[in-house]
Amino acid sequence: MPLSEVDTPALLIDLDAFERNLTRMADLVRAAGVRLRAHAKTHKSPDIARKQLALGAVGVCCQKVSEAEVMVAGGIGDVLVSNEVAGPRKLERLAALARQARLLVCTDDLTNIDALAAAAARFAVRLEVLVEIDVGGNRCGVLPGAAAVDLARAIAARPGLRFAGLQAYHGRAQHIRGHGERKAEIDKAIAATRATVAALNAVGLACDIVGGAGTGSFEMEAASGVYNELQAGSYVFMDADYARVLAADGAPISTFEHALFVRAGVMSRPAEGRVVLDAGLKALAFDSGMPAVHGLAGVSYGRPSDEHGVLDMAGANAPLGLGDTVLLIPGHCDPTVNLHDWFVGVRGLGRAEAFVECVWPVSARGALF
Amino acid sequence: MPLSEVDTPALLIDLDAFERNLTRMADLVRAAGVRLRAHAKTHKSPDIARKQLALGAVGVCCQKVSEAEVMVAGGIGDVLVSNEVAGPRKLERLAALARQARLLVCTDDLTNIDALAAAAARFAVRLEVLVEIDVGGNRCGVLPGAAAVDLARAIAARPGLRFAGLQAYHGRAQHIRGHGERKAEIDKAIAATRATVAALNAVGLACDIVGGAGTGSFEMEAASGVYNELQAGSYVFMDADYARVLAADGAPISTFEHALFVRAGVMSRPAEGRVVLDAGLKALAFDSGMPAVHGLAGVSYGRPSDEHGVLDMAGANAPLGLGDTVLLIPGHCDPTVNLHDWFVGVRGLGRAEAFVECVWPVSARGALF
Repeated sequence: MPLSEVDTPALLIDLDAFERNLTRMADLVRAAGVRLRAHAKTHKSPDIARKQLALGAVGVCCQKVSEAEVMVAGGIGDVLVSNEVAGPRKLERLAALARQARLLVCTDDLTNIDALAAAAARFAVRLEVLVEIDVGGNRCGVLPGAAAVDLARAIAARPGLRFAGLQAYHGRAQHIRGHGERKAEIDKAIAATRATVAALNAVGLACDIVGGAGTGSFEMEAASGVYNELQAGSYVFMDADYARVLAADGAPISTFEHALFVRAGVMSRPAEGRVVLDAGLKALAFDSGMPAVHGLAGVSYGRPSDEHGVLDMAGANAPLGLGDTVLLIPGHCDPTVNLHDWFVGVRGLGRAEAFVECVWPVSARGALF
Repeated sequence: MPLSEVDTPALLIDLDAFERNLTRMADLVRAAGVRLRAHAKTHKSPDIARKQLALGAVGVCCQKVSEAEVMVAGGIGDVLVSNEVAGPRKLERLAALARQARLLVCTDDLTNIDALAAAAARFAVRLEVLVEIDVGGNRCGVLPGAAAVDLARAIAARPGLRFAGLQAYHGRAQHIRGHGERKAEIDKAIAATRATVAALNAVGLACDIVGGAGTGSFEMEAASGVYNELQAGSYVFMDADYARVLAADGAPISTFEHALFVRAGVMSRPAEGRVVLDAGLKALAFDSGMPAVHGLAGVSYGRPSDEHGVLDMAGANAPLGLGDTVLLIPGHCDPTVNLHDWFVGVRGLGRAEAFVECVWPVSARGALF
């Protein structure tokens, strides 16, 4: 099926760029001597997760039990819920899932450890538990050091639980633009993590997993000598926001390529210099800013409403007509993917003979629980 | 099933408030002597649309053909796609749907009128077409007056098409905070619409439908003597943004009640004054600002990420523990609904004996085409 027959708006994967991104990350982590546990919250797709595992990833991360359920059902045998799980229903689903696959989860609270142990006992499984430490994100996680040791001891003391290591992810730092500022934040995270690992070792607790890192910083954690499992996810697609993050040479990070696009169509051209697209709040996420317009110099997207976006054509080289299409690079890939039911995998995107090679469901779309 | 058994995050309807909203709007439009064609983009649910029709609404509006397909499949017999439809696939689906129900659509372009006529001919149906005029939104729509008359004549001249009137919706004005400024914008829209109706009448073209208006302004259009079909949608649920729109007395508009909530759960309480909820970018839309925290003075929601939101508890009267729940009023109801698969209808929300009375699918969730 030629790309021209795909109706708009549609979520496209440039399969050529996507495959290069997968291979490049696999090469980088192999060279660094660390493991990749790719974050599946980016793609929400067991089809893509299986490709990551085939290239050497040891498993995936998820943020919700319902995402983990989709991954296990899709054949992924090693899943870390890189997040706290609270409430009896979710804990029981987590424990039930541990009968089918290796299941790991994070905690930052003593009462939560008791609840995890109760769920593990009820389902006669062993849950592997990471202690999440707050390395600068100010979101979840206990303070590094003694507080983490206390929780690790509590985990190790519970039958049905196994202390598996540390979760030390600094999400906010991933998007810091300047390389120097980003490195300073990550260096602090590395130091706090190193000290916590040492404090655990001092009481006889080993960390099989020291996990964290994202697409904006993973080379720093990889070189730290402390982190051994990287949790990058966005590298498979990249997005407009990551294109604003700078490398050491001051240029945008170019390790990975844009591989995710929303193809939108022109539905109205009511006035000079104004073109209205059929993709707005329901087709793109805007938490990290406007989408970039791919390959059309002088054209910018703005003023999204539910089903519309307005292109400012003031600087355009050529007009757009009704039914013409444009490729938009989402501001933030993860929540954009969550708005769509399908990925349309395109071979040769940008060439006249581009065609649809595959369609993958966004299997964990809407997995909130 | 008691509300306490509903896992988080979940999209709740307060059925008592919701039913009062439906009845109140039905009473207001009846008293004003105008019709209600409720906008289904708010709820995306034929279950709710049928309740609106049962209370007197003449039909519904949709923004996409795929939404219209869901409404017709759900038993709604009179649907206006209050938007332009471009591209051969969408036009053919629109024409095919006109075999099953009364179908109306908007246009603002002569080549689009030719395409509508071709689709109507191919499916041997008659499509009713409104000319959209730009009454201040600067989005779609031709200028009021002569440009609209030209399009109306073109519609009337095409076999298979019927000129049905004007679409004159001023979306941006709905959310203008001050009553005076809002009224000034709507008065301009009313004047432009009145002049266009007169210009059409002068060439022998009658407007069966003069449609527009939303929840923020509908009483103004209802009293205009020109608009005869109101397209309000958000009134069924209301949202945090509409609560910031002021009535003539300077107080927030109180015609309708908040009836839509995201119930979120506490998943982490890692530091003094900070509580982390399990509802973020995947559970709530943020294009119109943060959600309001219902019934908890001194507590505010902020810093959303995909699966987290942080409550600032600095001014709270009481702590929240792991697994406790809070009710969030979404900033913008329409795109929030689009993130969920189900509405959980609750009777007696806010009382200890609150229970789940019904579960309705968000049938047109993700309807982008």
